Amino acid sequence: MGGDHGPHVLLQAADKALLKLPELHLLICGHSSEYTFFQNNLDPSLLTRVQFIDCDEVVVMTDKPTTALRKKKNSSMRKVIDLVDSGEALACVSSGNTGALMAMAFYVLKTLPGISRPALISWLPKTRGRKVLLLDLGASVNCDAEGLFQYAVMGSVLAEECSQIASPKVALLNVGEEDIKGNTLVKHADQLLRDSKGINYIGYVEGDQIFAGDADVVVTDGFTGNIALKSSEGIAKLVIDEIKHATTETFIARMLSKLALPLLKKLYQRMNPDQYNGASLIGLRGIVVKSHGNASADACFYAIKQAYEEAKNAVPDKVKTKIESVLMEH
Amino acid sequence: MGGDHGPHVLLQAADKALLKLPELHLLICGHSSEYTFFQNNLDPSLLTRVQFIDCDEVVVMTDKPTTALRKKKNSSMRKVIDLVDSGEALACVSSGNTGALMAMAFYVLKTLPGISRPALISWLPKTRGRKVLLLDLGASVNCDAEGLFQYAVMGSVLAEECSQIASPKVALLNVGEEDIKGNTLVKHADQLLRDSKGINYIGYVEGDQIFAGDADVVVTDGFTGNIALKSSEGIAKLVIDEIKHATTETFIARMLSKLALPLLKKLYQRMNPDQYNGASLIGLRGIVVKSHGNASADACFYAIKQAYEEAKNAVPDKVKTKIESVLMEH
Repeated sequence: MGGDHGPHVLLQAADKALLKLPELHLLICGHSSEYTFFQNNLDPSLLTRVQFIDCDEVVVMTDKPTTALRKKKNSSMRKVIDLVDSGEALACVSSGNTGALMAMAFYVLKTLPGISRPALISWLPKTRGRKVLLLDLGASVNCDAEGLFQYAVMGSVLAEECSQIASPKVALLNVGEEDIKGNTLVKHADQLLRDSKGINYIGYVEGDQIFAGDADVVVTDGFTGNIALKSSEGIAKLVIDEIKHATTETFIARMLSKLALPLLKKLYQRMNPDQYNGASLIGLRGIVVKSHGNASADACFYAIKQAYEEAKNAVPDKVKTKIESVLMEH
Repeated sequence: MGGDHGPHVLLQAADKALLKLPELHLLICGHSSEYTFFQNNLDPSLLTRVQFIDCDEVVVMTDKPTTALRKKKNSSMRKVIDLVDSGEALACVSSGNTGALMAMAFYVLKTLPGISRPALISWLPKTRGRKVLLLDLGASVNCDAEGLFQYAVMGSVLAEECSQIASPKVALLNVGEEDIKGNTLVKHADQLLRDSKGINYIGYVEGDQIFAGDADVVVTDGFTGNIALKSSEGIAKLVIDEIKHATTETFIARMLSKLALPLLKKLYQRMNPDQYNGASLIGLRGIVVKSHGNASADACFYAIKQAYEEAKNAVPDKVKTKIESVLMEH
């Protein structure tokens, strides 16, 4: 359970997910009061596919990852991860404290053989309605070239298995497209990727090409990835705010704004950040999806759907097989 | 001389700059044919403030920085830097090959005492019509904590001297705002900045806060800065493309689009990338401003104006004095 908006949002998301995904069963870990709320408000026919697990401890946003890991062993966050570890759940979704979630998931589930660190990965919108996977979005701020190589493998598997992209194009994020550009880290990772036959590596891309280029998967370290993602969110918000401001300044602008509402809605749907909610923590022995703390019901639904698809496509097993096969090449 | 659009754009920019900045004198380095073009097209009263220097060698976009440095000693790019070095020019502007310009400027002009590496710095738009200085945008892809500290000093001076911001707020770009966040590099730089009394340091900012937060100056290494800038350009372009696409799809949308034209123009002016053209290479013994290769006449004018203001405010001297005073504290 969790999220800044409380159980209302989760109820709506669960309702939608259970309707749209008939094979889905939900195990909801939370407080008993939330349990009552669900029983009173969810359609009884859907309730049969929902099981509640009472957890009276909660990881709060101010908890340090290490504190949450050591002291909150009975929290709902820990419980969902334990359920994945024991095999009782095939995947888990949480909208809680990201640092605590990553620490717990890493500690309990461990990484797959051949993977040193998990990565946070998410779909982002791209020109002409396409989308791109960017990783690492901040699971690890220190990364070596082998780590970037492993991210390329994981991103490639996710694109292939969950989005049916045959032989996904993988690129490394850099400050230029030429061979001579970049720091020691990307140059070394570039060499590892060039030497591997298992990855459809297309070379370097610059920041602007994340959203316009040919790459299906863009790989970078967690520090740069987090800043690329958040900077982009910041400027997108700025552009949209400026448009809103420009269209409410004068009478004719306000009229136009009203007339343009259906158009703006359409645009919003195409650019909808909710559709890109659900960053997966990939590289672990189980499936963990992070939903935004302030996600809407739709966004929360997409996070559940992402977890469902990874479970259906057995993504951890595929990552394991792929990493074994590319490591065999070396 | 230079730029992808040839001498027409430069002529218009020079015309505007000479009209708006009455103290400005221009030394234009280029080919003799461009000289004739200027003589035939520029107002004779303005021509008296223009001097031409004939250079028949040109650095092209495909030249490697080291090749340009070693072999193109008679190029127009090298000449403008030599003029700054000899004191014949107070500042130079180039829209040529960025790598070559940085290599030549670094080699010829050298860094100021106390500065290890120059940084590329530019104004970016921010909410409510404000602006923010971001550095380093890619002058150096490998940077240590001392380097980030020096960037903070340089950014602070530029904000104070060229934009009259008293005691500019300086922030470090990081993956979170909490003390515990970040890699070793930013944590060390954070400590150096906290220990310094000469800088109004406000702590960490995340990527989205570049465009919305309180900071007047945001400091990061050249790898991350370049990717933050280009990612933001990429998503801004995506949002604007989607809006254009959404407003040309249907008849009513096309009508609205026509009606909305004055509004979009106004918005464009507020977000105008041309106004943010002119990245300065700061930390050198002379003033060097880089204009985009495909800059418009207006953008080129802003680059000239930036160089003019840095010269008028003796920015290199002020950086020298400031770095000496903060180093004395240690």
